[in-house]
Amino acid sequence: MEKVNVHEKLEMISSYWDPKIAGELNGQHVKLVKFKGEFVWHKHENEDEMFYVIRGSFTMKHRDGEKKINENEFIIIPKGVEHCPYAEEEVWVMLFEPAGTLNTGNTESNFTKSDPARI
Amino acid sequence: MEKVNVHEKLEMISSYWDPKIAGELNGQHVKLVKFKGEFVWHKHENEDEMFYVIRGSFTMKHRDGEKKINENEFIIIPKGVEHCPYAEEEVWVMLFEPAGTLNTGNTESNFTKSDPARI
Repeated sequence: MEKVNVHEKLEMISSYWDPKIAGELNGQHVKLVKFKGEFVWHKHENEDEMFYVIRGSFTMKHRDGEKKINENEFIIIPKGVEHCPYAEEEVWVMLFEPAGTLNTGNTESNFTKSDPARI
Repeated sequence: MEKVNVHEKLEMISSYWDPKIAGELNGQHVKLVKFKGEFVWHKHENEDEMFYVIRGSFTMKHRDGEKKINENEFIIIPKGVEHCPYAEEEVWVMLFEPAGTLNTGNTESNFTKSDPARI
């Protein structure tokens, strides 16, 4: 039952779009990730996904528009909804999602990380 | 698919130990709560519970000791583990736990909030 310092963990992450597992509860994972640049459009058939911004900001594009998510804000993308995160500058994000959620959902790409490491 | 500003929501909360539901995903609730003073010892038979500190700090007591959880840190209390949060000063916390989790778990008390409001 160790506590986790989210900033310290994020400082250890040197790659973008490469989520690390920082905690697990009730079959869900808490992941930490840095975004920079544009990701791929994708959706998750069975998983809702929460993005909470720890530092910086990013834009969540979806098919009906886009939304800028700033520090201390979160957005929940429901299952089945196509989305594409875009970050002009580096942003630190905490994700909540079911264990086993693939970062690129239904879109196989160079960004796909099928077995995220723990941090 | 609205974004949520966690600080703005917490500023709206005027009572202690009174979690409000700020989001829902995969059968889990994201709750926002202010702590001040000492809570009651309790456990959750079936739910793991995550405490992430947004502002301030608090002490999580458990039967084997205690741990101070500071801003930007989180701790996960596994199901079945007795715990008692204590906050010398006001602290702002984001909780992540299954929908329906009772704040006082197996301990009925004046702190019990059986039907948390949405915020």
